[in-house]
Amino acid sequence: MYIILVYDIKFDKDGVGQKILPKVFKICKKYLYHIQNSVFEGELTKSEIFKLKKELEEVIRKDEDSIIVFQSRNERWLNKNFWGVVEDKTSNFL
Amino acid sequence: MYIILVYDIKFDKDGVGQKILPKVFKICKKYLYHIQNSVFEGELTKSEIFKLKKELEEVIRKDEDSIIVFQSRNERWLNKNFWGVVEDKTSNFL
Repeated sequence: MYIILVYDIKFDKDGVGQKILPKVFKICKKYLYHIQNSVFEGELTKSEIFKLKKELEEVIRKDEDSIIVFQSRNERWLNKNFWGVVEDKTSNFL
Repeated sequence: MYIILVYDIKFDKDGVGQKILPKVFKICKKYLYHIQNSVFEGELTKSEIFKLKKELEEVIRKDEDSIIVFQSRNERWLNKNFWGVVEDKTSNFL
């Protein structure tokens, strides 16, 4: 399955979100390519998707943090266009 | 065409990015649904995609700001899962 994952980790005064963000980023980088700010993509098997979901759900706050996963059975059904700068796939975020 | 649009507007010391962001947000909101932080989705015709692209390219810095547009000929080829909070479609960002 071809996956696009986008996340939005809420930052707040107590700094919890700021600690969660690098954890979420590291987990996503294990499975997917980082293509932009909080956006990842890649080809995963169903069991990899299950593992990714489980790992992420252990670190995010289910009532505050948002992760959206778009799944397409075939990468060819989805084309990708860059308007503006083309991000380098290897991010130096962390 | 079913569209997912994600943007990453670079913030810098001179504050230019901070002025571009609300403009980009407003343009996207005219054509698409805001579903998360810098993520929009919706069904657009080819001419609407052309107009959206043109408007956005007039405000972004092509060598700094990143907009990625995923296009699928059919929304049914793409399913969407929320892990964590389900964002309200009407954003109070602006």
